[in-house]
Amino acid sequence: MNELQPIALESEGATADLVVEGGRVYCSNRREFLERDVAVVGDRIAALPEDAGSVTGPDTTVVSAADRVVLPGLIDAHTHADIQLIFDRAVPELLATGTTAIVTESSGLGLLFGSRGVETFLERTADCPISTYVTLPPQAFVDTFEPATGSPAELEALSSLLERERVVGVGEIDWIHVVGQDAPIERLYERAREKNAAIVGHGAGCRGDSLRAFATVVDNDHEAISAAGIRERAENGIHVVGRCGSIRDDLAALIEAYPALDPGSVSLSTDGVWPGDLLEGVGMAELVRRLIDAGVEPADAIDAATRNTAEQFGLANRGIVAPGAVADLVVVDDLETMAVETVCAEGEVVVADGDPLVEARTDPYPEYVYDTVSVALERERFTAPLEAAPDGTVRAMTADSGLVTTETTVDAGIVDAGDGREPRLGPDPHNDVLTATLLDRDPATDDRGFTGFLTGYGLESGAIATTGTWESPGLVTVAADTDDAVVAADRVASMGGGFAVARDGEVVADLAMPIAATAAELAPETFATEFDLLEDALREGGVDIDRPLLTVQTLTFPGVPAVKLTPSGYANVRGRSVVGLEPDPARPD
Amino acid sequence: MNELQPIALESEGATADLVVEGGRVYCSNRREFLERDVAVVGDRIAALPEDAGSVTGPDTTVVSAADRVVLPGLIDAHTHADIQLIFDRAVPELLATGTTAIVTESSGLGLLFGSRGVETFLERTADCPISTYVTLPPQAFVDTFEPATGSPAELEALSSLLERERVVGVGEIDWIHVVGQDAPIERLYERAREKNAAIVGHGAGCRGDSLRAFATVVDNDHEAISAAGIRERAENGIHVVGRCGSIRDDLAALIEAYPALDPGSVSLSTDGVWPGDLLEGVGMAELVRRLIDAGVEPADAIDAATRNTAEQFGLANRGIVAPGAVADLVVVDDLETMAVETVCAEGEVVVADGDPLVEARTDPYPEYVYDTVSVALERERFTAPLEAAPDGTVRAMTADSGLVTTETTVDAGIVDAGDGREPRLGPDPHNDVLTATLLDRDPATDDRGFTGFLTGYGLESGAIATTGTWESPGLVTVAADTDDAVVAADRVASMGGGFAVARDGEVVADLAMPIAATAAELAPETFATEFDLLEDALREGGVDIDRPLLTVQTLTFPGVPAVKLTPSGYANVRGRSVVGLEPDPARPD
Repeated sequence: MNELQPIALESEGATADLVVEGGRVYCSNRREFLERDVAVVGDRIAALPEDAGSVTGPDTTVVSAADRVVLPGLIDAHTHADIQLIFDRAVPELLATGTTAIVTESSGLGLLFGSRGVETFLERTADCPISTYVTLPPQAFVDTFEPATGSPAELEALSSLLERERVVGVGEIDWIHVVGQDAPIERLYERAREKNAAIVGHGAGCRGDSLRAFATVVDNDHEAISAAGIRERAENGIHVVGRCGSIRDDLAALIEAYPALDPGSVSLSTDGVWPGDLLEGVGMAELVRRLIDAGVEPADAIDAATRNTAEQFGLANRGIVAPGAVADLVVVDDLETMAVETVCAEGEVVVADGDPLVEARTDPYPEYVYDTVSVALERERFTAPLEAAPDGTVRAMTADSGLVTTETTVDAGIVDAGDGREPRLGPDPHNDVLTATLLDRDPATDDRGFTGFLTGYGLESGAIATTGTWESPGLVTVAADTDDAVVAADRVASMGGGFAVARDGEVVADLAMPIAATAAELAPETFATEFDLLEDALREGGVDIDRPLLTVQTLTFPGVPAVKLTPSGYANVRGRSVVGLEPDPARPD
Repeated sequence: MNELQPIALESEGATADLVVEGGRVYCSNRREFLERDVAVVGDRIAALPEDAGSVTGPDTTVVSAADRVVLPGLIDAHTHADIQLIFDRAVPELLATGTTAIVTESSGLGLLFGSRGVETFLERTADCPISTYVTLPPQAFVDTFEPATGSPAELEALSSLLERERVVGVGEIDWIHVVGQDAPIERLYERAREKNAAIVGHGAGCRGDSLRAFATVVDNDHEAISAAGIRERAENGIHVVGRCGSIRDDLAALIEAYPALDPGSVSLSTDGVWPGDLLEGVGMAELVRRLIDAGVEPADAIDAATRNTAEQFGLANRGIVAPGAVADLVVVDDLETMAVETVCAEGEVVVADGDPLVEARTDPYPEYVYDTVSVALERERFTAPLEAAPDGTVRAMTADSGLVTTETTVDAGIVDAGDGREPRLGPDPHNDVLTATLLDRDPATDDRGFTGFLTGYGLESGAIATTGTWESPGLVTVAADTDDAVVAADRVASMGGGFAVARDGEVVADLAMPIAATAAELAPETFATEFDLLEDALREGGVDIDRPLLTVQTLTFPGVPAVKLTPSGYANVRGRSVVGLEPDPARPD
């Protein structure tokens, strides 16, 4: 007999460890709110009696949910817990948003350290109050623009992690690496399919026959940004993951599409909430609130944040309030406000009166994750050779809205190389021409690097450097001044990673991200403040676009078009080729 | 790149193996019927193009679904494929009911042979056109009435089968063995939980605190026979499995309960369709038709017979028509008739124009499954000792409706024991008093046996014997005449199992079930005919109850109350004890 039965049977002397009493409990198998108590033993729900009085003893923790609504703990279906701010530091605040479980990418530690990094992250999150399910990083096994860096042994090591209880699938990789492509990643997918593990898609801009082909590969996708895109995914059997967080807010599209969807085939995700947004309350409860406020059936909105995700990723006994299920519970004032009052995670009260009762974990990660920025920073690497553009006209990226860059041509500036050497191509900020340099940090490759050009960013002086690059481990600078690029990059390297803005030879703002050079270990407030100061420094330098740091971080990211940085040149995303500084002669310009 | 992508991309020269064209295809992620072709490569759906013409080549099999509806292959969420008629023989007819996958108990081979029997069944069904998912037999690990017979080694062997791809959980066992009980079965459940495998319930009559306690153990249950019982299960987080087949028809209750359920938390099952019913068209398509006819949303009814079951049991890539899913497809004329026209199983057309294209598999099973009835058949074993009831009044079972028996007392007959020995207690058919004998066939135990009494069955002469006993391996006779009991039992033993009816010293009808003594290997028509002849023979003997063979088969089955046979006495089901022939002195009678 399991330890829950005596409570269900109200056996003589049996008392629950925790009782949540007097609430309206969401019963997802009935899509109703029932007046029940919730009796918990250990980390499990034992019973939903109408009155738990008989199993409430002197040692029972009692949480009143009178006039409140009791929901299953909310599950974020797609997030990034190991980039920007390392997860541990934000756990208390995340719990306060009602999140008790996440399905997270592991592309921070995983991008640089592969399976070893994933193992570290699994160890680190084993006892986390937020149950942490992980998808494997596939980035090393695509070869669309650069040769794949992952070895067969690493593929094997990564695949074997699919045996771990909290490894639930393979993480996102952009469709362009997969659709119509033969890449080593297919072996990882085969292993995942054998294990009935989920394959996460990243289908930004994917449609038509490409989406049909992508649908033969992936199980879910969070990149639809229109109702039509959502419907098209659903038609092709792709589980729709709605998104609202620090990267994008696509809820309006989801709300529009809802009537045309099976509500059981929808999940909700943040895709990552950075500290500034987190402190402003962006989180799973807020996502649910917005759907309900927009007219989505409360049961559908709650299911999308709970059981649907548990089913999609095979999270055992999660996402419902029922006997035998894990005792992850959220008490909210009502469904209109979704104000989180109490949170129980695996039977422990971790948020009370809206305030987290747990502390952030602050002990260091294993030593190997630190001090990973050892790129050479010669000034010349931040410029381009003159012969790349004999007439001075070079291919360049235009910073469009958000993460998108489009191709253009600019006239590069000429910079002195010193020591009587031939001048080189560099920024010309007076004409809005900046250098954009990617220095590769992948330990599996040689010291590669490429300097291209960026326009539309608006930086008039100084430079920004970061190792917080998406999809490939790099150090990127965007510079109006080459010397400042070196200064900023040097600061980032000496911090072991992060962001730095330099101007007139001095660092004017920085933020250390020492874990794998992609995640900070700071209090969320500190991170948010420093992040704001970085943005302020860029704005002072003339940058006038939204989220200027994200633009820099995603210059390495071919998941959105059209032209990005690789260590060997520009990625012509749609053409799936690497091109150089010479403008395309066929391009009408 | 997987083999499906070229079709999705309509790559030059790529042709599908199979195209189902022109139908209205059920898209479960949108709950709509879309005008799409279905292009199949190998055993997988490659794409749902609006026109598959460009991927249709000279070698492509083309199925027209014009003016038809295309559904995912239907999945029976709970059946018994290895009792009564062995599954192989009914596969063509089952396919014609639209069934392309089953989740089946393995209590026929599993009850007698444990893990070895399950392994044989798995091997036998590995290439079956109906995808066969198996739940493990837990019967040997309960000890409510008799000591558990399963050894720790067998528990280990059985548990290790949870690693097999088609083993999806632990099969049904009645709640009385589990609720409030400490039994070795809990170890099997623990192993299943570790593997995130499903635990199937058998909650007949379970309610209130017992149901709450049962809900801490099981994931799904098919034994609710009222709308209230269904709602109570749903409230306790139990996935509801509706049932209609040869054992019971509970669809009316399900239909009544549907508005109070999350439709995604419902599956459909037959719980077994015996050949007579199968030949009359009872099957999954008919179940769906009846739900739709009663007003259940077609999408809900279809989902209950497809994706919901696939999700409940973790059947990978089953239950939906979508790229990447297994190409199990059913073409029906319309949703009103649900007349099955074409069935594709893993990409092969197995039913066309309503007729199966595959043959039943008829090669023998491994030798060890045959010739398993080696019980001693001395006449004395079919009677009871006189001292058990000094005043002639004995405890007896009344055959109520269906599977239920209630407790009563009767005056036993006195029979001559021969050779000058003391007379014994036996049948008195003139007063509707029959003997009911259970001889144990479990190889793990000694040659145990018990003769009790049955009234209300109506047999006036002769005897019926069967090895088709539920939940424990036995040979049961019900006799108006002790000599005929021996004759019938002897015939059953000599056939290696099955049914026999004897009268006046002669066998008047029989049906061989030589596989584990619980399953026949006959054409369904032959089985149905012989089964009818058995029932006719009983009716000629005076029996006037519905399904008289089922009554005999379930005399060993404590899954329904109130008094049943064990090898040591009567199982007092509700009291969870074994009692003898002496009437309960406390019983007002």
